[in-house]
Amino acid sequence: MILALDFGGTKLTAAVFEPGERNWRGHKRAFSPPGAEAFQDITTMLAMAHELLAGAQPAAVGVSFGGPVDFAAGRVRLSHHVPGWEDTPLREILRGQFMAPAAVDNDANVAALGEYRFGAGRGHDSLLYITVSTGVGGGWILDGRPWRGAGSMAGEIGHMMVDPAGPLCLCGKPGCVERLASGPFMAEALRRAWSEERGAKEWESGDWRLAIGNGEITGVTVAEAAAKGDGAAVKVLERGAWALGVGIGNAANLINPRRFVLGGGVTKSGERWWQAVRRVARETALPEVKFDIVAAVLGDDAPLWGAVALAQNALKGDA
Amino acid sequence: MILALDFGGTKLTAAVFEPGERNWRGHKRAFSPPGAEAFQDITTMLAMAHELLAGAQPAAVGVSFGGPVDFAAGRVRLSHHVPGWEDTPLREILRGQFMAPAAVDNDANVAALGEYRFGAGRGHDSLLYITVSTGVGGGWILDGRPWRGAGSMAGEIGHMMVDPAGPLCLCGKPGCVERLASGPFMAEALRRAWSEERGAKEWESGDWRLAIGNGEITGVTVAEAAAKGDGAAVKVLERGAWALGVGIGNAANLINPRRFVLGGGVTKSGERWWQAVRRVARETALPEVKFDIVAAVLGDDAPLWGAVALAQNALKGDA
Repeated sequence: MILALDFGGTKLTAAVFEPGERNWRGHKRAFSPPGAEAFQDITTMLAMAHELLAGAQPAAVGVSFGGPVDFAAGRVRLSHHVPGWEDTPLREILRGQFMAPAAVDNDANVAALGEYRFGAGRGHDSLLYITVSTGVGGGWILDGRPWRGAGSMAGEIGHMMVDPAGPLCLCGKPGCVERLASGPFMAEALRRAWSEERGAKEWESGDWRLAIGNGEITGVTVAEAAAKGDGAAVKVLERGAWALGVGIGNAANLINPRRFVLGGGVTKSGERWWQAVRRVARETALPEVKFDIVAAVLGDDAPLWGAVALAQNALKGDA
Repeated sequence: MILALDFGGTKLTAAVFEPGERNWRGHKRAFSPPGAEAFQDITTMLAMAHELLAGAQPAAVGVSFGGPVDFAAGRVRLSHHVPGWEDTPLREILRGQFMAPAAVDNDANVAALGEYRFGAGRGHDSLLYITVSTGVGGGWILDGRPWRGAGSMAGEIGHMMVDPAGPLCLCGKPGCVERLASGPFMAEALRRAWSEERGAKEWESGDWRLAIGNGEITGVTVAEAAAKGDGAAVKVLERGAWALGVGIGNAANLINPRRFVLGGGVTKSGERWWQAVRRVARETALPEVKFDIVAAVLGDDAPLWGAVALAQNALKGDA
């Protein structure tokens, strides 16, 4: 029996899985309450795991963590959401609790492994999984194994600079993929564009943008407004797709993986977005560089399935 | 005894190497005459090799080829310099001639392997070797082995797009690293800048730029003029260094290798160029992504030394 744990930003999920079966033997989820600290999340997770195991010992434990991890050392570096995680030896904690081999990695790497072993990447032994959501991150599979980089920092396609004349990213440089393609940044760009239009010409009451504009503008708003043909929204969405497409094409030239697997909320933005991403990536890559770009299939469960694969690797003594 | 062969664009080099010794047992070089075809180059190379071997059978043969190679199939795809190379089964030809395991790869991958095993990359089991010359190309070492990509096309950092408002590259897209950072393109930019200056104000006779301008302007001219403080040359050189620095920083974010090794003529452009490349690469990469950037040490011999390493790998049945 494999124990799979997913420490998300706000959600904690534990599941047990019997190799050979097609679904979870058991599955539990809890929310990490606002203000929770690391030790509380760990305690909650351990309690769920012990309940699921009901006294049985797992063969191995795999963990997806929503933040930077030093894989080789088995330590969480920190969490951007929950205080107290700094330099936590999570692998040792789990080994001690469950007397089994354990492996811990960040969510992008683990999701990449999940899609490779159980999802949209099956049979494609080199791929980049990209999550396009509130941020843009990635995880590599090269030669059928996760590639984490010399300092466990590989996969940061979100901070590839693609336009030196672009807006400033939180990382301090202009025109990063994330600064143009992530949901919140596209929403901000649309809010600004609409405000300017409003200044030029008062919208008529009944204008559907008023209705959308009443709520908070999000990445979903951008996709919905673009689908309804709003010019500003189309422009923002296509600029986001352009940035991601350039990032993918550049990555294809550099590493030549067989496939790109895209997950995260922004990938629900409709056919216009997908077409633009594929077209720009194809134009950016050299003609001889072949690849395809497909949608992730495991959704929110990708890290949990990846944690299963990570545990199976740990069982084989493999990274 | 290892047989190492380097099919350069215009030069053919063969060498024999005894593992454990520090230098070549024997070494021969010939020029590929203008108008030569593939079969002539192969014949010349085989004759040199047999002469060096003097009847002995090599343990393995390693080959660097200056053009695209399908490593897995052991076939040269084509040469951009010499006709008749299309889909040549070079590995089989060499196996038949020398009755020994053989391996063939393109010059960037082989040079990367050479610098890793014998040069500036020793002990750094993840690195990108970049040649900055008439073109800009690269070869990866990941986990101590060459990473060639799904279709043997990895390493094309020269065609990473870094400025959508930049000049059009031969590949059809704007602002590629190669279009800004390679020797011939920097020379062209300097020629254009000087022509414009000349239009604005006639140079005085005795102006050193006249002397430089009499000959053909090359990448070396750019470096020399920049060293003498010519404003236009400094600008062109720094723009080239900027493009390469962005490429390196983006590659660092994406793959997180331990080291970048830079070779090729443009790397002789002086301290100003090196400082700009290092500064921009550091600014482009996230602060947590650590790496260094060093000069290649094997010079023109990198492909030959890499061919030795390739042959040693072939002997072990390793890629």
